Amino acid sequence: MERFDIAVIGTGPAGVSAAITAKIRNKNVILLGSKDLSPKISKAHLIENYPGLPAISGAELAAKLNEHLAALDISITDKQVGAVYAMGEHFVLQAGEDMIEAKTVIAATGIVQSKPLTGEDKFLGRGVSYCATCDARLYKGKTVAVLGYSADAADEAEYLAEVVDKVVYLPLGGGLPSPRENIVVTEEKPVEISGESSVNALVTDKAVHEVSCVFILRDAVMPDKLIPGIETDGPHIRADLNMQTNIPGLFVCGDIAGKPYQYVKAAGQGNVAALSAISYLNKNKGE
Amino acid sequence: MERFDIAVIGTGPAGVSAAITAKIRNKNVILLGSKDLSPKISKAHLIENYPGLPAISGAELAAKLNEHLAALDISITDKQVGAVYAMGEHFVLQAGEDMIEAKTVIAATGIVQSKPLTGEDKFLGRGVSYCATCDARLYKGKTVAVLGYSADAADEAEYLAEVVDKVVYLPLGGGLPSPRENIVVTEEKPVEISGESSVNALVTDKAVHEVSCVFILRDAVMPDKLIPGIETDGPHIRADLNMQTNIPGLFVCGDIAGKPYQYVKAAGQGNVAALSAISYLNKNKGE
Repeated sequence: MERFDIAVIGTGPAGVSAAITAKIRNKNVILLGSKDLSPKISKAHLIENYPGLPAISGAELAAKLNEHLAALDISITDKQVGAVYAMGEHFVLQAGEDMIEAKTVIAATGIVQSKPLTGEDKFLGRGVSYCATCDARLYKGKTVAVLGYSADAADEAEYLAEVVDKVVYLPLGGGLPSPRENIVVTEEKPVEISGESSVNALVTDKAVHEVSCVFILRDAVMPDKLIPGIETDGPHIRADLNMQTNIPGLFVCGDIAGKPYQYVKAAGQGNVAALSAISYLNKNKGE
Repeated sequence: MERFDIAVIGTGPAGVSAAITAKIRNKNVILLGSKDLSPKISKAHLIENYPGLPAISGAELAAKLNEHLAALDISITDKQVGAVYAMGEHFVLQAGEDMIEAKTVIAATGIVQSKPLTGEDKFLGRGVSYCATCDARLYKGKTVAVLGYSADAADEAEYLAEVVDKVVYLPLGGGLPSPRENIVVTEEKPVEISGESSVNALVTDKAVHEVSCVFILRDAVMPDKLIPGIETDGPHIRADLNMQTNIPGLFVCGDIAGKPYQYVKAAGQGNVAALSAISYLNKNKGE
């Protein structure tokens, strides 16, 4: 299996910046994330404080970042990373059904804006899942709910519907799945995930749905779920000025590394994270 | 006297970024430094990793930063700051003969690339000076040497020549002073500043000049000389991820805050420093 020098997770300004610096330093880099870059960027109306690009819209900044990636021949691998495992000398990233190996990881995943749902932490792995591709088959013949926050949640729901008996889909920011007999789309707000030893219901503001699993599909996963063993500070991952986390070889940048949530701050930290990863690679070369 | 909300010292990408964010947040900001921005930027051949501006020359980046400042109506006050004094509730910046007051300070001065000369630290204040404007009159009737590293060193030497008896001028990167009877320009490299209780000679690679003072005119001043009481780490000023130094209300960004020396890292830190300064201002508003 190909082992990348640097895996960058996230395609906001932080991840893009990290990939750019890694690439011009001739590292073998994989950039994982949405081909549309960060949905947050594209939605920004006017960015006035990205030095050198006065009064630019979010869509324009995204276009410029895309041009920059293209100019350096950096492609985006459009996969959502569900988990990062530190194996000692390298990392394994689980992206859907694929496993990706890298010597260093730069997490630029942004932050989860919402708080975890009641029951989410309690039932994780026992009827709460963040990955349809990974866990669909566990619920063959059952009814599941999908909380569709992410851009690709609708696609994931369609895949689930091929495997499970019935899908209750709540569109919460993501798109709508194509009409299908066993997908019920309902405009409700999730309130609680309940159960005993495992999940048996999703409680919303309007109804109680009896389900065996709740798939919570967000664009970002809580950092401690994404990276077992990572040291966090609220919704953020702790890092020093070199963007090094408590796990050697794992660096962070952008919103996930803490406030302020700003484009140029994210880009700056991406640059630092890439150079720190390169310095880590150089140090461990001889071993 | 006008008391600024934020004084930004330095016009590289860090200082420019800090001033931009301070301005769009409606703060009363003064940006101090060279109107030519950082000489280091303009000399850069090709910058490939400033996200959004692929393969840009240093001169082009400087032009874009200038455009951004102009678009936001931010002017540069072309003065070199010789010292920053923390007065408790505010700061006083000494810039030539002027004193500037500010509630917060963002130091984005870059770093002094060269090591201090032998004798420089020992004789500082006893025949070593960083400021012709401040100290010229102490050497009325005497002979002094000028180590002309900075862009405005030649002007300073001309001013000195109006006050002192004779100026020995070493052009070390700065320009040449206009010909004048009592200025001797000599192409030599400084080696040592020597003396007993105070300076009596500048030793170069070619000669020994008997002088009462050596004016060392660099674009940047060693951080602990610039800001008495600041906590340093080698040539850098120590700061946390919010760019807060050990002196409350005093923030740093860019090269002075540590490696890597990179444009987008500097710009990102400038943004963070400005937002931290604003948050500091808000906290102290009610007191």
